[in-house]
Amino acid sequence: MNYSEMSPAEVRQLIREEKITGQTSGMCAGYAQANLLILPREYAYDFLLFAQRNPKSCPVLEVGDVGSRATKFMAEGADIATDIPKYRVYENGVLTGEYTNIDKFWRDDFVYFLIGCSFSFEAELLEGGVPVRHIEENKNVPMFLTNIECERAGIFHGKMVVSMRPIPRDKVIKAVTVTASMPRVHGSPIHIGDPAAIGIKDISKPDFGDSVTVNEGEVPVFWCCGVTPQSAVMSAKPSIAISHAPGHMFITDVRNTLLKD
Amino acid sequence: MNYSEMSPAEVRQLIREEKITGQTSGMCAGYAQANLLILPREYAYDFLLFAQRNPKSCPVLEVGDVGSRATKFMAEGADIATDIPKYRVYENGVLTGEYTNIDKFWRDDFVYFLIGCSFSFEAELLEGGVPVRHIEENKNVPMFLTNIECERAGIFHGKMVVSMRPIPRDKVIKAVTVTASMPRVHGSPIHIGDPAAIGIKDISKPDFGDSVTVNEGEVPVFWCCGVTPQSAVMSAKPSIAISHAPGHMFITDVRNTLLKD
Repeated sequence: MNYSEMSPAEVRQLIREEKITGQTSGMCAGYAQANLLILPREYAYDFLLFAQRNPKSCPVLEVGDVGSRATKFMAEGADIATDIPKYRVYENGVLTGEYTNIDKFWRDDFVYFLIGCSFSFEAELLEGGVPVRHIEENKNVPMFLTNIECERAGIFHGKMVVSMRPIPRDKVIKAVTVTASMPRVHGSPIHIGDPAAIGIKDISKPDFGDSVTVNEGEVPVFWCCGVTPQSAVMSAKPSIAISHAPGHMFITDVRNTLLKD
Repeated sequence: MNYSEMSPAEVRQLIREEKITGQTSGMCAGYAQANLLILPREYAYDFLLFAQRNPKSCPVLEVGDVGSRATKFMAEGADIATDIPKYRVYENGVLTGEYTNIDKFWRDDFVYFLIGCSFSFEAELLEGGVPVRHIEENKNVPMFLTNIECERAGIFHGKMVVSMRPIPRDKVIKAVTVTASMPRVHGSPIHIGDPAAIGIKDISKPDFGDSVTVNEGEVPVFWCCGVTPQSAVMSAKPSIAISHAPGHMFITDVRNTLLKD
């Protein structure tokens, strides 16, 4: 199956039927993908404010009305509780399980947040002649916890999570300009070159996702990542929170080009 | 006094001392100016969500912690309750008074929102060779209620408010490109050319601010405006809300160029 060429509605259907349960990098080229966080209403203001104060990590694409599982702006006919390949449930800040749908956990006071994902700009990187290693190697993107403290908002705080792509030295500027034009899916990189400068000890040992090859003459380039809310949930310890599993995203009906302004 | 060349801290001090009580267009060239909305905490989530769903009208620059009058990100040493030239108090959606400071109204459950203002990009328009009529005529910018419905969020809904600048036909494209690069202060225009198309009956009779001259060969260009929250407050009727008076803005310490990404 060439998921890259399929429509978002088709892929979401396969995900809903649990025929796709893996990571979504490279699927539905040109369409925005999104991170998920679901919280009870009592925590929703603090989290929305956390997103406002950390816009490069948490560019909010859509927030559901209280209790609603349907999306209004980012996709038609989608169900936020079934249309993601893998979910994570956190109780009191502790990951307690991974599930292919969260129907049985849904509550009337839940609010979902969809947050831009850097998978969205990978089609544009490829079009710009910038290679994307984890797509070449058919892996999930490597993600790392950094030592960069997010701006606190209410109960939410924690370290920033980043994704890494090794970029040939002569393509780094192109990688910056292509992604800078897409701020709603994390935009320009947060750091170029030195993993240690942002608290990453070993580039071959990601905290989330897979390790990828970094060739001679390639520079590790780091972008803000929508797994950051999971870091904030682990610190804030809300009674319950549900997220996507890193790399297992919600695929929207919205073309990346429509998110450019 | 040439307020255009003064620092934001100096101008805010004059405002605090009530030596400046008029509109702030053209002051502190190159620094971002901001709209204000203050609400009790019980309404804060609905409003922050309204801003997220109407980002061109309500680009949020900073949200205060509950009860805090100090700004942390946009200015140093500022007091949100005294450093704006003129405030408006709304009770149950009705404008009940204008004040030069709101010290006596402040409550421990108040949350302030600072929202980008199109005055911010006027210095850039002038540098780009685009004339700004209300600055030439030493007036407030003309603002209009449109027939464009905002996206609802909780109790907040209402019509979009826009600012209008008459632009010579051969400068319209420059006006678009200059402002498009500054999305956090409303960005590109929402409409060019036909006031009736967005529900404006008489271009010489603004709903807020002053009327300005529109010369032969000039096109009215409309930008989203941070007075939109006041339209939403009039519709939503929260028990109390406090805003700036249209055109009487909070002047930040942050240069416009820093808001470009």
